[in-house]
Amino acid sequence: MIRHVLLLQWTTEATTAQREAALDGFERLPSQVPHIQNLVLEEDEGLAEGNADLLVTMDFADAEAWRAYQEHPAHRALIESALRPILARRSALQHRLP
Amino acid sequence: MIRHVLLLQWTTEATTAQREAALDGFERLPSQVPHIQNLVLEEDEGLAEGNADLLVTMDFADAEAWRAYQEHPAHRALIESALRPILARRSALQHRLP
Repeated sequence: MIRHVLLLQWTTEATTAQREAALDGFERLPSQVPHIQNLVLEEDEGLAEGNADLLVTMDFADAEAWRAYQEHPAHRALIESALRPILARRSALQHRLP
Repeated sequence: MIRHVLLLQWTTEATTAQREAALDGFERLPSQVPHIQNLVLEEDEGLAEGNADLLVTMDFADAEAWRAYQEHPAHRALIESALRPILARRSALQHRLP
């Protein structure tokens, strides 16, 4: 199994509605992209300046399933419609699950 | 409980020895900073360009324990000696554990 880990930081101009639309979009993804397992979304607690706003983790059976997700139309649409307009910074990593 | 999540990307000049020293430094931290619980280190699988290199997660009893960690001499020393010299990008977030 592969875990995909994302830390996303929104722009300061991002509205609450835009932030919620991004979360809603992620929450809908597993119903649109069958490869996604165990989606977890966690928002920052606000303990420090300059933090990311959202942690996203998703699990995939293997690298091939992760690549299918990367290219999936629903994922591409979420990026273009809800993420890119409000994204200030993105950091990602994929690691093997024991 | 609070989970501290870090994605760290090393400079391209970072040597294998420097990267390993950073990992070793993190692995020693729980023995030096009693507030740290459940330290997890995961290295990137290399599936995508521009990814972070290391995921670090640690749990703390509460925000106060997390702050004590932030200011702890052993943490400060690790940053100055092993992390800052090879750090290209850092993204962090803290979230509440259920």
